[in-house]
Amino acid sequence: MTYCLAISVNKGLVFASDSRTNAGVDYVTTYSKMHTFVWPDERICVLLTAGNLATSQAVLNNIRTDLEKPNAKMNIRKGQHLYEVAHYIGQLSQKEQRQHADAMEKSTNGGSEASFILGGQIAGQPSEIFLIYPQGNYISASPETPYLQIGENKYGKPILDRIITPTTSIEDAARCALVSVESTIRSNISVGPPIELAMYTSDTIQEPYHLKLTLNSPMYKSMQKQWNEGLRKACDRLPRFEWESTSQE
Amino acid sequence: MTYCLAISVNKGLVFASDSRTNAGVDYVTTYSKMHTFVWPDERICVLLTAGNLATSQAVLNNIRTDLEKPNAKMNIRKGQHLYEVAHYIGQLSQKEQRQHADAMEKSTNGGSEASFILGGQIAGQPSEIFLIYPQGNYISASPETPYLQIGENKYGKPILDRIITPTTSIEDAARCALVSVESTIRSNISVGPPIELAMYTSDTIQEPYHLKLTLNSPMYKSMQKQWNEGLRKACDRLPRFEWESTSQE
Repeated sequence: MTYCLAISVNKGLVFASDSRTNAGVDYVTTYSKMHTFVWPDERICVLLTAGNLATSQAVLNNIRTDLEKPNAKMNIRKGQHLYEVAHYIGQLSQKEQRQHADAMEKSTNGGSEASFILGGQIAGQPSEIFLIYPQGNYISASPETPYLQIGENKYGKPILDRIITPTTSIEDAARCALVSVESTIRSNISVGPPIELAMYTSDTIQEPYHLKLTLNSPMYKSMQKQWNEGLRKACDRLPRFEWESTSQE
Repeated sequence: MTYCLAISVNKGLVFASDSRTNAGVDYVTTYSKMHTFVWPDERICVLLTAGNLATSQAVLNNIRTDLEKPNAKMNIRKGQHLYEVAHYIGQLSQKEQRQHADAMEKSTNGGSEASFILGGQIAGQPSEIFLIYPQGNYISASPETPYLQIGENKYGKPILDRIITPTTSIEDAARCALVSVESTIRSNISVGPPIELAMYTSDTIQEPYHLKLTLNSPMYKSMQKQWNEGLRKACDRLPRFEWESTSQE
């Protein structure tokens, strides 16, 4: 499995991803799931991938090949709006899945489905994030739901639901994203480090700030320690039962 | 869906359950999923239920009917050890599921599977908790994994993984269980209030302390408020990025 998420706040975008892939429990490997395409002052696209690794790699190969073709009808640099880029990626994904559909049907090694998060900005337009489903269709985030997740999304959802709003700062959203991924890593063995984090400030149209945290990174260790202590303190703040208050007074 | 959990600490047991059941999204109802059987000084059994409501109700009906039969080969009062009671409940569940297997196979309304958590104590033996799978087999908790969950277990797992150890007090474990259920309610519409909570102190062999929290209960509101504030503070404690420390100094 995998866990990736993107957050869209007023000031910009945050992307986070784990790096574990596995085929069964005895073939566990590390792959980056965050792919950045930048044309400064023109457009930036960040793509996060989850699901079948062959499908997501094939989609990336096709994205890169189409970029090299000056006469390509469509590529991620040509879409007029970001949703058109999302549509194009959804079509590449569907095409790849169809190619192997018959063989995958006979196989017991899971399906060929993959999902994607696409985020970024085209100059003159707002920054946006999209979740592209395995079926090729896609949704964007909204002020009420300013984040999107793919893969093992449940463990890390409560913290996002409580903290993230459109007015959250990019840095606070990034810390929240790190906690969301770290909680998932801790509770689910199919999600693992390093954690990649990208922070993009809207309207800069430049390479986002990028960070890769391994288990030994001082920031990762410090985050884990502070979060554990913070949660303990949060637990200590919770209301006491009658008999406890009596005994404490 | 449902979310129930039980925690076994050195001092005793904690049980928590939500109360929402649904058949599709247009038939949502409220049922207690916590059932307590107490014979003071002799034994106490707490049963939490998840999955198909017809199956779990049938199992409970059978448990009650068998208790009324003085000559019953087995009932929850006759098992010599708690694991035998778990085995008996697993068999009742399997028997019930088999009865409807053919009809359920033709239906599109989900399966007849149900899972259970059984916890309690038989005088002279340690207090224990068991998770009974839909297949009728069962596992107990351990010092390394002192909690068991059924139903929508992912949202509420990270907090348990970080806080609960065998030396946690019953009250702290109960607060943690409440947060675990409340986080799930917040992130998943198929899990809903009231939350039931039971706290059992080992070797008392008496009715556990029982609490039912609705959305309007002062304790529920206070818990929500304190937890939200505590999480915000925990987020504020997290390490800053370089440029933030510079700007703060």
